[in-house]
Amino acid sequence: MNLILLNESDFTTCDRVQLTDRRLTHLQDVHHAKIGDSLRVGLINGKMGQGTITQISDQSAELQLTLEDEPPAPLAMTLILALPRPKMLRRILRSCAEFGIKQIYLINSYRVEKSYWQTPVLKNELTQTYLLQGLEQAKDTVVPKVYLKQRFKPFVEDELPRIIEGSRALLAHPTSGEPCPHEIERPVTVAIGPEGGFIPFEVEHLRNCGFETIHLGDRIYRVENAINVITAKLFN
Amino acid sequence: MNLILLNESDFTTCDRVQLTDRRLTHLQDVHHAKIGDSLRVGLINGKMGQGTITQISDQSAELQLTLEDEPPAPLAMTLILALPRPKMLRRILRSCAEFGIKQIYLINSYRVEKSYWQTPVLKNELTQTYLLQGLEQAKDTVVPKVYLKQRFKPFVEDELPRIIEGSRALLAHPTSGEPCPHEIERPVTVAIGPEGGFIPFEVEHLRNCGFETIHLGDRIYRVENAINVITAKLFN
Repeated sequence: MNLILLNESDFTTCDRVQLTDRRLTHLQDVHHAKIGDSLRVGLINGKMGQGTITQISDQSAELQLTLEDEPPAPLAMTLILALPRPKMLRRILRSCAEFGIKQIYLINSYRVEKSYWQTPVLKNELTQTYLLQGLEQAKDTVVPKVYLKQRFKPFVEDELPRIIEGSRALLAHPTSGEPCPHEIERPVTVAIGPEGGFIPFEVEHLRNCGFETIHLGDRIYRVENAINVITAKLFN
Repeated sequence: MNLILLNESDFTTCDRVQLTDRRLTHLQDVHHAKIGDSLRVGLINGKMGQGTITQISDQSAELQLTLEDEPPAPLAMTLILALPRPKMLRRILRSCAEFGIKQIYLINSYRVEKSYWQTPVLKNELTQTYLLQGLEQAKDTVVPKVYLKQRFKPFVEDELPRIIEGSRALLAHPTSGEPCPHEIERPVTVAIGPEGGFIPFEVEHLRNCGFETIHLGDRIYRVENAINVITAKLFN
């Protein structure tokens, strides 16, 4: 937790918050915080700044705030991702928030197991928890938006053309297309398939929608690593 | 498992193996393999090729081999890593193998918890298991070498100068130094600290040894993501 994230409901006055939950535990156990200590804080979807501890006990901590800094710039990248298995999804949600990806479409694909759509990780509250963990790590306040699209064809045909408008649309597909570009200057939409990849029908549909295929070399990365690798290559 | 890895002890003749363990389960449950099917195989630390199933039952599978291909080129990168917590270490070992990093030094640092050195993940057999999982994913056969260095100062003073010889030595350090370079042409040695970073004494020691500090921008990445990001930026 490199940043303590605040909710509107934490505020007791316009520049004071009272914290009671795992953030209090974190202040005590990790920071060994005491009155007068100043910590990096940020309002969820708002500004960042400093919080000075004015009171702390086992029940609660009070912080006096100065919130004047903008959060870091988002990545100009939209992610279209075949729904991964739940354990990996948790880590991917954290990582996406960490990297500054703000638009995540989780979509169906032939190789996505139906049961994945039932995971509790997709329940809004739990999804938010993982996203906030990524923001706390990266020192960002802007919560990524996650959209669930359980029908591949209608999504690709009816919604995706509008989503990729104004961006370069890249489909990561092992061993076909061009190598992943480095440091590109314009917004991108990146589509990444499930373990085993999109099936030819799906690849064709995405190509028809305007996606270029790119690859990451001879090695086949796990999906979570592929996201990291592509993001790192595309942005400085 | 995109590649089935073979041990010397699997061989029944010079070009035949018999498999009985989780690889048999994988052949049955994932590939639904039957006689005549051909699969990608590789000899640990040796060549890769095809294995054709000549017999398969619930007890064992026999494959006839042609091993003629070289494994993919390794990354020209040595990793010097402050020992991470065990759960993360497992994933990092897998990822390093996946990326083609072949030399990994796990070192001590002020912020490495002493208990981490007791983790079973560092026992040779378990370390190998995670490394092999990464190789199976990436389709590689060459097992990375992992060295444990529990004393920071003697390691940096007495061993590190020889290790970095002929390479560009980069120390990833949040918010100081130059941005991480892209697509460099020569071998690199990359040092990455623990959560919270190396302490100033350690940074100074590494600098004196010949490391340049680099950063990854405003965001603070978890160690496992930092490794992926740096690797992706440095190599095409």
